[in-house]
Amino acid sequence: MQTNAIRHVAILGTGHAVPPQVVTSSALDQRLQFPPGTIQQAGGVSQRHFAAAHETAAQFAAQACQRALSVANFAMNDMDCLIAASGTMDQGMPCNAALIHRELGLNATIPAFDINMSCLGFLAALDTLSWLVVAGRYRRVLIVAADIASCGLNWQALEASAIFGDGAAAAVLGASPEGSQSRILASELLTISEGAALCQIPAGGSRFHPSRIDQPFDPLTLFQMDGKRVFKLASQYLPDFLQRLLHSAGVTREQIDWVVPHQASHLALSHLSKRLGFPSEKVINIFANYGNQIAASLPTALDVAVRDGRIQRGQKLLLLGTGAGLSLGGMVLEY
Amino acid sequence: MQTNAIRHVAILGTGHAVPPQVVTSSALDQRLQFPPGTIQQAGGVSQRHFAAAHETAAQFAAQACQRALSVANFAMNDMDCLIAASGTMDQGMPCNAALIHRELGLNATIPAFDINMSCLGFLAALDTLSWLVVAGRYRRVLIVAADIASCGLNWQALEASAIFGDGAAAAVLGASPEGSQSRILASELLTISEGAALCQIPAGGSRFHPSRIDQPFDPLTLFQMDGKRVFKLASQYLPDFLQRLLHSAGVTREQIDWVVPHQASHLALSHLSKRLGFPSEKVINIFANYGNQIAASLPTALDVAVRDGRIQRGQKLLLLGTGAGLSLGGMVLEY
Repeated sequence: MQTNAIRHVAILGTGHAVPPQVVTSSALDQRLQFPPGTIQQAGGVSQRHFAAAHETAAQFAAQACQRALSVANFAMNDMDCLIAASGTMDQGMPCNAALIHRELGLNATIPAFDINMSCLGFLAALDTLSWLVVAGRYRRVLIVAADIASCGLNWQALEASAIFGDGAAAAVLGASPEGSQSRILASELLTISEGAALCQIPAGGSRFHPSRIDQPFDPLTLFQMDGKRVFKLASQYLPDFLQRLLHSAGVTREQIDWVVPHQASHLALSHLSKRLGFPSEKVINIFANYGNQIAASLPTALDVAVRDGRIQRGQKLLLLGTGAGLSLGGMVLEY
Repeated sequence: MQTNAIRHVAILGTGHAVPPQVVTSSALDQRLQFPPGTIQQAGGVSQRHFAAAHETAAQFAAQACQRALSVANFAMNDMDCLIAASGTMDQGMPCNAALIHRELGLNATIPAFDINMSCLGFLAALDTLSWLVVAGRYRRVLIVAADIASCGLNWQALEASAIFGDGAAAAVLGASPEGSQSRILASELLTISEGAALCQIPAGGSRFHPSRIDQPFDPLTLFQMDGKRVFKLASQYLPDFLQRLLHSAGVTREQIDWVVPHQASHLALSHLSKRLGFPSEKVINIFANYGNQIAASLPTALDVAVRDGRIQRGQKLLLLGTGAGLSLGGMVLEY
């Protein structure tokens, strides 16, 4: 298995979108009749965006796509493929990508399909599709992750609800333009399925379909997380995983300009500096203002840091994250 | 966009699995108090397999995987990646592949993620992952599609319920063994999202989450189809699509030994011979005994015809189908 093949592909543009509704942690305390400071303290998130009932993941996805295309200076018709890399479904069927394809009003019949690796969908899609861009199967691919987490939160379990937010983020992937140094140096994904039940939404598919169960349905539509065990299991694998990835990429920790992590939790983000050896000023941390946006989290962090000028062309980025599954994912690239 | 690059990859083994429960159309007539012959006539399916309430898509997926591995003469540890290509979710989270990874009892931490293109997931996964096998990113990939359709059927709408069945099918994809002619000659996918609402399950994700709607939830968990409009839209695109695909592959209709179609419907299958020019004896048709098994349909048809000896190594196969989205997919390969 070859994880270190250099791929001369580039992220040609990124964009993100959030629902207009900003929900502060103090507003949530009030709404839920918690003592002031409860929500903020439970997760470390000050504010997040929550979708209104009439807004859809496909709408935010389409906005993020338009912004990424605008930066990349391409039109939708220049894309050869549309990948939805969300961690949650919009509808049960068809796939998310078809609904985003429709939302974008595409007359072009470019193929639209989903790559779902829970919170790591964007990384999995970027890695997977990069090989098809290199091979010329698709010249340019639009990858977008859009998740509405807010509808599945259980406010009786603050650990698994206080940290989430809604949003979408997209990237245009294509061959590196002439003269550009942009390339992927290495990427790796792995799944430790003994942790499959540690982060889950039981309902939403066939296993707990209303027609097949004898228990109340609604509670099964809520996200469940055993944060401590997730963190423990992930921490067990992360150091070796990271070392292998950096070794494959042929770079040292010190050569990484920016770590762009999945915004899993306050603990996970501080683990990067405390245990994994990256100074916190090199870690793109948007958690306090966005929360954990499932698969949209990592590409949103990337877009925020590209737009505010921190991330520059030619710099070395480490994209890194954990996701329900339990899965680990990482990529080293020259932006 | 290069659809015709020859890839020296092979389907090294296939397997399928169905729930033990066989449901004949006459038994359904009785159960639903329809006049004898109603279900059979409505869809052309004589029998199908329906999962019991305690059975899961991941279980059938794991069985299909074991059978495919056994034929390919590989152990699970020889796989570098596990792709779930189902058209429906097992749970809302994590992705299907993580649940199958767990069901297989994998200690190995090979990455597990989903590729969902509704009924065309297997084709999309085969096409997409073939490039990664060629590049050496993964030496061997296990692709499995498993769908339990039966829980989402609306028996008030026979057109969209009489035709479905449950099941799973898997394939081991790897580099062509030395001396083997196996290769993919061409593949193509497209999505016509003006048809996104023609085949759908509204609920199961964020759009119609119980916490976001003011209407009864259960009806939204059922599959809806406007079969006539699907057929009309697909028929509009299929002839050109097919011609382009055959042209890319450099083969004529006559050189195709077997058409392995998605088992969409009786009408769709007969369209292949009546309108698209393939003699019905060259079309693998398992529809009467399995029904439409969503994404598991196409690989199940493939496995059935490989096991009964119709499909032989060296023969030219056309895999072809339509899926919710609305999407079209096709691949020409030398088996």
